[in-house]
Amino acid sequence: MGFLTDELREFLDAHRVGVLATIAADGKPRQSVVYYAWDGERLLISTESKRWKARDVERSGWASLCVRGDEMPYPSAVFSGRAEILTEDIGPATASVMQRIAGTPEPPDPQSDEALAAIDRVVLAITVERVAAVSYIAADERRDGD
Amino acid sequence: MGFLTDELREFLDAHRVGVLATIAADGKPRQSVVYYAWDGERLLISTESKRWKARDVERSGWASLCVRGDEMPYPSAVFSGRAEILTEDIGPATASVMQRIAGTPEPPDPQSDEALAAIDRVVLAITVERVAAVSYIAADERRDGD
Repeated sequence: MGFLTDELREFLDAHRVGVLATIAADGKPRQSVVYYAWDGERLLISTESKRWKARDVERSGWASLCVRGDEMPYPSAVFSGRAEILTEDIGPATASVMQRIAGTPEPPDPQSDEALAAIDRVVLAITVERVAAVSYIAADERRDGD
Repeated sequence: MGFLTDELREFLDAHRVGVLATIAADGKPRQSVVYYAWDGERLLISTESKRWKARDVERSGWASLCVRGDEMPYPSAVFSGRAEILTEDIGPATASVMQRIAGTPEPPDPQSDEALAAIDRVVLAITVERVAAVSYIAADERRDGD
């Protein structure tokens, strides 16, 4: 993760939604807006095992997340790498995502894996191996995407 | 385009950036933030022929665009379909995109195809054939993406 600059780390901390892209069964990208948390190594997304995005990751082992700011010039970057669906020890990661959704200072108490399994909750984790299309985050970057 | 509801049309009118997904040569999704315009049938993006996104579209003939609002609950939808790179009669479409970037009431005077070719400008056009992951746009929609 040495390639993640301080600016990129601050950018990930400062935002909470991104556009997830997974590889659908027909080979086409599948996009959706998700809340994320991150633990300094992995991007963490709370979803349900029955969702297409979870199935895509189970099948392909890969995902990317495009995060952008909400005001012009819309700073953005795309983080991608190996992805997996986690079902064990996911209470804290799930609570982190819930905290980001609620915007509260502290996360809620973590739920047990059993309680999360009962509502089909899993964590989609992306190990960030590549950062691309970085725009307006470092001072010398420009939009290369339009 | 009968499947594009009035709410979706208004949503496309009210926003101007989205996350484009194309299919890279290795089969993985490639995402980037782009400004778009649309003519009621096609989503129009001004880019350069040398960009990876343009090459992806030339090769695969497909793209999707995820548009989201900038405030909670982050309304969003993903528009996808056949895509192509246009180089003829692209002055008005290019001017429309420039108008969205500048936020001006009227588009600038369209440039000629020759002038745009001289700066490598092309238009990436997506014919919207499918809308997915619609969240918080119609009253009965919910986020299905997190």
